[in-house]
Amino acid sequence: MRILIIGGGAAGATAAQFARKQNRDAEIIIFEATQYSQYSKCGLPYALSGKIVAFENLVEFSQEWFQRNKIELRLSTTVERIDSSRKTITIRGPSGSQDELYDALIFATGASPSVPPIVGIHSGDRLRDGVFQFRDMNQAKEFKDWCLKKSRNVVVIGAGLVGLECAEALHEMRRQVTVIEYLDSILPTMIDPDMTDQLLAIMSNVGIAVKISSSVEEVIGHPSIEGVMVTSRKDGKRDIVQCDTIILAAGQKPVTSLAQQVGCDLGKAGHIIVNDRCETTVKGIFAIGDCSQYRDAVTKTELLVGLGTLAVKMGEIAGKNAAGGDSRLPAGFLNARVTRLFGIEIAAVGPLSSALTTAGINTIQSRVKGSTLPSYYPGGKEITVKLSASADDGKIISCQIVGEKESGLRIDVVAALMMGNMDVRSLSMLETAYSPPVAPCVDVLTTAAQAILIKLDRTKRE
Amino acid sequence: MRILIIGGGAAGATAAQFARKQNRDAEIIIFEATQYSQYSKCGLPYALSGKIVAFENLVEFSQEWFQRNKIELRLSTTVERIDSSRKTITIRGPSGSQDELYDALIFATGASPSVPPIVGIHSGDRLRDGVFQFRDMNQAKEFKDWCLKKSRNVVVIGAGLVGLECAEALHEMRRQVTVIEYLDSILPTMIDPDMTDQLLAIMSNVGIAVKISSSVEEVIGHPSIEGVMVTSRKDGKRDIVQCDTIILAAGQKPVTSLAQQVGCDLGKAGHIIVNDRCETTVKGIFAIGDCSQYRDAVTKTELLVGLGTLAVKMGEIAGKNAAGGDSRLPAGFLNARVTRLFGIEIAAVGPLSSALTTAGINTIQSRVKGSTLPSYYPGGKEITVKLSASADDGKIISCQIVGEKESGLRIDVVAALMMGNMDVRSLSMLETAYSPPVAPCVDVLTTAAQAILIKLDRTKRE
Repeated sequence: MRILIIGGGAAGATAAQFARKQNRDAEIIIFEATQYSQYSKCGLPYALSGKIVAFENLVEFSQEWFQRNKIELRLSTTVERIDSSRKTITIRGPSGSQDELYDALIFATGASPSVPPIVGIHSGDRLRDGVFQFRDMNQAKEFKDWCLKKSRNVVVIGAGLVGLECAEALHEMRRQVTVIEYLDSILPTMIDPDMTDQLLAIMSNVGIAVKISSSVEEVIGHPSIEGVMVTSRKDGKRDIVQCDTIILAAGQKPVTSLAQQVGCDLGKAGHIIVNDRCETTVKGIFAIGDCSQYRDAVTKTELLVGLGTLAVKMGEIAGKNAAGGDSRLPAGFLNARVTRLFGIEIAAVGPLSSALTTAGINTIQSRVKGSTLPSYYPGGKEITVKLSASADDGKIISCQIVGEKESGLRIDVVAALMMGNMDVRSLSMLETAYSPPVAPCVDVLTTAAQAILIKLDRTKRE
Repeated sequence: MRILIIGGGAAGATAAQFARKQNRDAEIIIFEATQYSQYSKCGLPYALSGKIVAFENLVEFSQEWFQRNKIELRLSTTVERIDSSRKTITIRGPSGSQDELYDALIFATGASPSVPPIVGIHSGDRLRDGVFQFRDMNQAKEFKDWCLKKSRNVVVIGAGLVGLECAEALHEMRRQVTVIEYLDSILPTMIDPDMTDQLLAIMSNVGIAVKISSSVEEVIGHPSIEGVMVTSRKDGKRDIVQCDTIILAAGQKPVTSLAQQVGCDLGKAGHIIVNDRCETTVKGIFAIGDCSQYRDAVTKTELLVGLGTLAVKMGEIAGKNAAGGDSRLPAGFLNARVTRLFGIEIAAVGPLSSALTTAGINTIQSRVKGSTLPSYYPGGKEITVKLSASADDGKIISCQIVGEKESGLRIDVVAALMMGNMDVRSLSMLETAYSPPVAPCVDVLTTAAQAILIKLDRTKRE
């Protein structure tokens, strides 16, 4: 049995790992376009700032690990063509081009950063000097080299996770940073606008300028970058933001040209559609990670995969199935997510409030403040929780948490409850472990559930 | 409607709070034997050490809070008799004795420390000077006064939560501490013996002597205490441990003389038996908190209530029901518990392994080590997880976690899964939120679940 995996990131490497666990004898080969063994892309901003001392420390599955597990890892190798009728792929690597047969093929091709339509961003057919992407190790290394040598003043285009994590790193490197976001709030795909105040306040305090609802129209300056021309999407006012460096963190698009060529069905945004076995619509071909889409557990609509955790879950399922198993994803993903920025943890699970509205889901929400520790114990930190439940049956459908620490782990508790289809009554009765130096007797999650219960009871009475 | 509550601790005060939420007009009266408004008993060790600067800071529901919520709090008042046929109780307070009618009566009488049969522990009918209990504020204050003035060298009898939390406080006060435990491991009702090594090592490092399997036979010295005579339960060897002070932390017994008198059914260990509405077997009478027992969610056998969290859950249910509601506890308690001692967090949910064996539950266990953070990110701390699942269906039935920090919140995740009757397959697919500075992509809980899955699959194949 021959299992070929295109892409050696977290998804691909995990697929290989679980294919091996499932089947001791299968031939497993990963084709990776870059020269790197699997490493953590999520760790790149911390290698930029220097918190992680070397980029090479980000490697998780080393070449030795692959060897030990008899998984062949072919680096600097791209896949050029797939013939699904002959079950063959054509690869090009350091030693030339050749065909490889497969029994199962796994797309773990990831995504590439979007390049927004900005005048003057290119020089010929590549980005001009001083304009960077920040998705893979080569890009991050190039950017860090440039920053250390030539940059004092950086514009970050995009206030998503990558943009803000880079902004934090650059701030720690004592660079002047301006973040420009096209949409109307920061972290727009992660949390609701009304949960961003605390983070915005801290960023403002430390001297990072944030411009939301703003479109970068043009890069100014020759031969060096001198700034960007920004237009407010609210009032149309134009403004020049000075900078010597630009980082593009305005989203990403899935890498799917091979999948398209071979006839896999794609979703509206171009992601490869898979079922709960991670199978594409072409027999024998699987897709996992950022190039794919699955189902949102709450809205039942498509969920574009964009988290390392989901890549790894899918890798496990696809790997086992490619090697002859029959494993299945949960019916939908909860999209549990977290980050820590400027000392604030921001965590969420389930759809944004705007997505719940779009999906026509009738919700009841609570928003409460609590503390990480009992009121009488010193050192507790404020936590804000926004919890949503179905107005019909009280089922928990989303939660967002912002606080100085330990918010991330609380979102896992809500994810567990959602996985079990539990309601706010269950959460109000959940035994959260209590000890004065660890957590309060009545946790903020309990309080948030009780607040919704009161609203639900009132609705029923009316 | 008249609701009388005997006992103004966490259980009683919470019952009053939720009775008021349920019913704006009910007359609600709490009779509390001590002179204190509700305070956190769990916080007493931290007021001993001085981490919490004053004992009075432990008050959570103040007298003003009760007034604001129109709940009458009668301090220094004891209940002497109950006549359930006339629905009357006889109280004795600062202004004498009188009868009070009730529609609903709630026992929240708590527990009192056990006094082990030790020769020379008493002077007349009270404990001799230098021997202390540590369950309520008066006892804790007396003990602290004595410690500050007269104590250099303390023997703590009992290595349960109270004993070890006091040992830590005394160590922080620079007292010499010896902990003596009758049973064969420390924290014997909290975690399995094989999860205590890390804590034992740290206690040894900081100079606290711990003697397990040891029985204190006699207090030595006159007029002052000079030591205790200890007999090893393993080899019968006798030994004198020098000390000037003794603290009794060898468990507790429920306060149930009134409940017995009125005919409430009691369990084997003397706790008041209640149903899922927190009703006793006597109509109109409820019981909550440490004086009561309910059902263990896993073994379905009796669970002796001994946690503040359970007291508060029961207070909520009993308070609502006493005031005319119809609320119910979950079918059983998970007994989620946590503490932090000497920088180590110890957390558990579900029965001890020994209790699972006694109950005849066939389990598969895993024991794995992980880190609070990804391997590539600096500052992660080791976490050890012991997870148990049913060998029949893979349902999660217990979990124990030991680690330097953030163990407590991970146990809440397992509690949530157990509340939803979920299995290790679900846990292996649980989306734990990931970000390098917050938590790893593959959490140690996931690894523990995967380890059991492999064993389960192997069992099936055999």
